[in-house]
Amino acid sequence: MATVQLTPKDFSDLLEFSKSLAKSAGEVIRSGSKAILQDGAVDEKKNSVDLVTEWDVKVENLVKGEISKTYPDFKFIGEESYSSGDRPTLSDDPTFCVDPIDGTTNFVHGFPFACISIGFIYKRQPTIGVIYNPFLDQLYYALKGHGAFLEVPGYSNPLRLPISKARPLESLSQALLGVEWGSDRRASVIQKKANSFVRLAGDSKEVLGGKMVHSLRSMGSAALNYSTVAQGGLDSYWEIGCWPWDVCAGIVIALEAGCYVTGSKQYFLAHRDEEPLDLVDWDELLWGRKYIVIRAIADTATEKGRDTQRRLVEDFYNTVEEWDAE
Amino acid sequence: MATVQLTPKDFSDLLEFSKSLAKSAGEVIRSGSKAILQDGAVDEKKNSVDLVTEWDVKVENLVKGEISKTYPDFKFIGEESYSSGDRPTLSDDPTFCVDPIDGTTNFVHGFPFACISIGFIYKRQPTIGVIYNPFLDQLYYALKGHGAFLEVPGYSNPLRLPISKARPLESLSQALLGVEWGSDRRASVIQKKANSFVRLAGDSKEVLGGKMVHSLRSMGSAALNYSTVAQGGLDSYWEIGCWPWDVCAGIVIALEAGCYVTGSKQYFLAHRDEEPLDLVDWDELLWGRKYIVIRAIADTATEKGRDTQRRLVEDFYNTVEEWDAE
Repeated sequence: MATVQLTPKDFSDLLEFSKSLAKSAGEVIRSGSKAILQDGAVDEKKNSVDLVTEWDVKVENLVKGEISKTYPDFKFIGEESYSSGDRPTLSDDPTFCVDPIDGTTNFVHGFPFACISIGFIYKRQPTIGVIYNPFLDQLYYALKGHGAFLEVPGYSNPLRLPISKARPLESLSQALLGVEWGSDRRASVIQKKANSFVRLAGDSKEVLGGKMVHSLRSMGSAALNYSTVAQGGLDSYWEIGCWPWDVCAGIVIALEAGCYVTGSKQYFLAHRDEEPLDLVDWDELLWGRKYIVIRAIADTATEKGRDTQRRLVEDFYNTVEEWDAE
Repeated sequence: MATVQLTPKDFSDLLEFSKSLAKSAGEVIRSGSKAILQDGAVDEKKNSVDLVTEWDVKVENLVKGEISKTYPDFKFIGEESYSSGDRPTLSDDPTFCVDPIDGTTNFVHGFPFACISIGFIYKRQPTIGVIYNPFLDQLYYALKGHGAFLEVPGYSNPLRLPISKARPLESLSQALLGVEWGSDRRASVIQKKANSFVRLAGDSKEVLGGKMVHSLRSMGSAALNYSTVAQGGLDSYWEIGCWPWDVCAGIVIALEAGCYVTGSKQYFLAHRDEEPLDLVDWDELLWGRKYIVIRAIADTATEKGRDTQRRLVEDFYNTVEEWDAE
């Protein structure tokens, strides 16, 4: 099959398709959460993992069904892509990269931060990102080159991200950071994570290398962490262990909101001066399992703003410890 | 002055007054956050502490002004009550206990989890609680003996808390917990906190005493943590370092939603079998600086549900380390 050539109209249609799909999927997610919380207690044979899997599959089937109806030739990357044993390398073909329910622990507990995350990759570049949290009715979306937006109750027009204009950010000591405890609970991992958090939060007069950041937040959804950084509500988000479908949509939204997006410390040092959208090795970044994003900083558009973002990532990576994802 | 005697009508009026006040204050909080995020960058002489203080005072003045117009004889406990050097003991007099902006770090960063927290104490007992997050337009409220509710966009009627019926909760390994990094960044405190989080999150096969909870969340607002536990979205919330005005409203909402509310480990062991609303030493609990709350569990109304809540608190306190608040 020759590579599909997409026109600007195609991209605009794909964005509308993805937004509409995210809303439909969101309804299923919301009713799933309600069903689990209302009736889960009755069906005591099912544990929470079974319950999550059941709804995860339900939402994924809906999404795959709609995609195959409208875009039968497009590829799909999701959790199954990996569990089937083949790690697909990115091709030039149009590819959806979807997490049906991001934040499954929140979903099953009724903590209102779960979402569907729909990414679209074209010619090896993440190009469309749509993230919808049905519990708060927040729809984040971006198309490469056209900015990032949030549709939310109370505003008749979409809000351009970041919501407020990019502010300065002099150092990590002024930052509010998104971090997560994740599902990898090996002692070595949890300890490295805790050591990292202690150095980030600790007073430098007391903790060696302490950065005394304003604080650390944990919402439990990679996609919503990216969205919140794009929005300007968090200054940065760092995680090890995510997969491409967790981050693909978020990365497009973040980049379109002026964020700096990169991978592990090693990846960052090797690629720091590339402008990600055009030069980045997306295969390596998306599958790298290690991710960090810094919000738009005043003058992000200029060399100075980018320099500040890079300096903060470097400072961050000199503060935390990394480990290999499971 | 003889003790004021309040009638059921008075309480109902006080609840409506507090809800309306919370909404007005919320508008000021929202416009304050906008002003800081839009214009803060321009006025570089002001650091974020000054900016927070400015708006904290603005909201507190609004609240005190409205209270003194409508209830001129009622007392007021807030941050100033402590900074003026006198720790007021609770009296039989009607007393408002208010945090004008709870979650000030979120407020100044545009992370949409800041709120006003209005508590009302009568005859030494927290009796009314109103918590309003203007960023998500979530209004939580409760009047002792009349249940706890949430008004939120998308629902024409208030939702009774917990939103879904109380579910079982067998052990901490099934729990989603709210914890916070707080503002006390002494090395000893941060290390005890991190050790506690590692034991909560760690796999018991690898971490001594590891509970492997589902996960840990950090939202950065004591009042919203209480509300979220009341709602059923978190199973528990634990913090050391809060003040009465941070927790007073949340405690009323939590109790009315069937939660179990208590203080430090020592407090818990001394008072564990008291039903808090009637027997508790509120002076000791509110000013104790150490707080934990567990959500309603199936059969909470019965001895069995309460027993489970107490068993989980005991298990929690055998897992974490405590320290003295600054």
